[in-house]
Amino acid sequence: MSAFDNRITRLFNIDCPIVQAGMVWTSGWKLASAVSNAGALGLIGSGSMYPEVLKHHIVKCKTATSKPFGVNIPLLYPDIEKHIQTVIDEGIEIIFTSAGNPKTWTSVLKQHGITVVHVVSSSMFAKKAEDAGCDAVVAEGFEAGGHNGREETTTMVLIPAVKEAVKIPVLAAGGIATGKQMLAAMILGADGVQVGSRFVCSNEASNHIKFKEAIVHSKEGDTMLCIKKVVPVRLLKNDFYETITKAEANGASKEELQNILGHGRAKKGMLEGDLTEGELEIGEVSTLIKDIKPAAEIVNEIWNDFNAAVKDPFCQDKE
Amino acid sequence: MSAFDNRITRLFNIDCPIVQAGMVWTSGWKLASAVSNAGALGLIGSGSMYPEVLKHHIVKCKTATSKPFGVNIPLLYPDIEKHIQTVIDEGIEIIFTSAGNPKTWTSVLKQHGITVVHVVSSSMFAKKAEDAGCDAVVAEGFEAGGHNGREETTTMVLIPAVKEAVKIPVLAAGGIATGKQMLAAMILGADGVQVGSRFVCSNEASNHIKFKEAIVHSKEGDTMLCIKKVVPVRLLKNDFYETITKAEANGASKEELQNILGHGRAKKGMLEGDLTEGELEIGEVSTLIKDIKPAAEIVNEIWNDFNAAVKDPFCQDKE
Repeated sequence: MSAFDNRITRLFNIDCPIVQAGMVWTSGWKLASAVSNAGALGLIGSGSMYPEVLKHHIVKCKTATSKPFGVNIPLLYPDIEKHIQTVIDEGIEIIFTSAGNPKTWTSVLKQHGITVVHVVSSSMFAKKAEDAGCDAVVAEGFEAGGHNGREETTTMVLIPAVKEAVKIPVLAAGGIATGKQMLAAMILGADGVQVGSRFVCSNEASNHIKFKEAIVHSKEGDTMLCIKKVVPVRLLKNDFYETITKAEANGASKEELQNILGHGRAKKGMLEGDLTEGELEIGEVSTLIKDIKPAAEIVNEIWNDFNAAVKDPFCQDKE
Repeated sequence: MSAFDNRITRLFNIDCPIVQAGMVWTSGWKLASAVSNAGALGLIGSGSMYPEVLKHHIVKCKTATSKPFGVNIPLLYPDIEKHIQTVIDEGIEIIFTSAGNPKTWTSVLKQHGITVVHVVSSSMFAKKAEDAGCDAVVAEGFEAGGHNGREETTTMVLIPAVKEAVKIPVLAAGGIATGKQMLAAMILGADGVQVGSRFVCSNEASNHIKFKEAIVHSKEGDTMLCIKKVVPVRLLKNDFYETITKAEANGASKEELQNILGHGRAKKGMLEGDLTEGELEIGEVSTLIKDIKPAAEIVNEIWNDFNAAVKDPFCQDKE
């Protein structure tokens, strides 16, 4: 891997400024260690793990890689104290937090020498993360999969806005699965990228093979940000999507929508492979994902494509 | 202006691959000629013009510039035959069509030697435009102002998808107001860009000064794609937006929404400056627009910023 040196590679002590998103039902030790071994930063996604399961994944990840890796913790996780204690006990050095207020836990983590990165969807939240002491932010555009912001700002607009708002490094997320998209995001002002959807279609991702195949076959317009009255989430359209969207269009209340949503939808869809009634969280970029392959190949492909684009940015114009 | 040569500059015989969008109540001969005189491509927006008004603008534009300029014609314009006849009679050499099927008029225009570009929001529509004989397409992302597609694909994902789908040149639109955004779009695969919102805040744009000032003061999240049951349109939030969005959330029918919308909302907002009850069509990028200035300065600023970014793509990393 060709050398690259910037604020993000130095912050995490990695070879290329690519971070694999810590996604529910997807990002276990197998994916995180494969990504880290390839020179990028792998993250364990703790949002779908019981505390003892998280501990198990951390222990396994340590044996699978000697490279840096991190853990993503959604701040609205019910047993948040236990997750925080686990990562401190296990000596985790990099934590990505999301879905919540960074004020509460950042200082606790920083006291243990942990590098803290917070995921935001606006420059206002980016500034709050900086003020809370975070070392970097992930700025996640409207096109990203899973839970997202209410302002619907896309990566093309969000990255310059966040870059202007904060001094700490910025990782761009949302709509990034190729090296050209990575370079575009860095020209917009990002110091690196967080890639989610592309790694869902890696061999090492723990989600169901049927979900991976559905992504490979998906087309433009097959994902949509919905359930906005409860919490905006981008997912692959299916019967469940049709049901809840129709209810929303007919004026269903937040409570009625929560009843339709029920519990365990994401697990049913992403882990168990129920493509009809499950919640299938994925980004718009799924339309550009054409195959399932090892995570290391994905890292190398993005990185080689990025470097080729740096050398020849207008190759699209070879008529 | 530094020389640049690619498929778009050759197609239009212009100096830099920047096109100013032909926007309703905004893009008259003053704006179009100022942009063309600056080395980019200016467009007269005929969607808000009576046939005789369009003719007047074309005649004035010809006296104001010796450089190429074009006309945008929305294909759903009620008196479309008259607009088509006017541009043929006046010897217009470049037509951008939007909001409709390119099959109907492209061959007629081509028979008169006119270069035809069609605006699309998906790669499927881009392919249809290519098949209809168009010379290029504008691929317009979700973040763009005004009328937009139902698939909500953002510029970051749309441009690579459209680039893959067609052989004709691609202009990127949506979220582009700076040279860095222009370079990002071209790295994604575009051969040039169409810029709308930034030119709304030019001295020469014919929309109301109050609307320009509202854009300058707008922040992230202040625009939203809405009225999706009728036709998706991105606008600046105001009382009218709140009324129609509330009705939509409560399950209002398409007819009820059309009644709320009524007629002349865009004119009221954009031309007459009614910021409360008017429809104020603008893109997400308005949050990055900080001033009102001459169109030529906007062209030069974008182009100089673009060239600086080409020379030093990672200047954001100067810690």
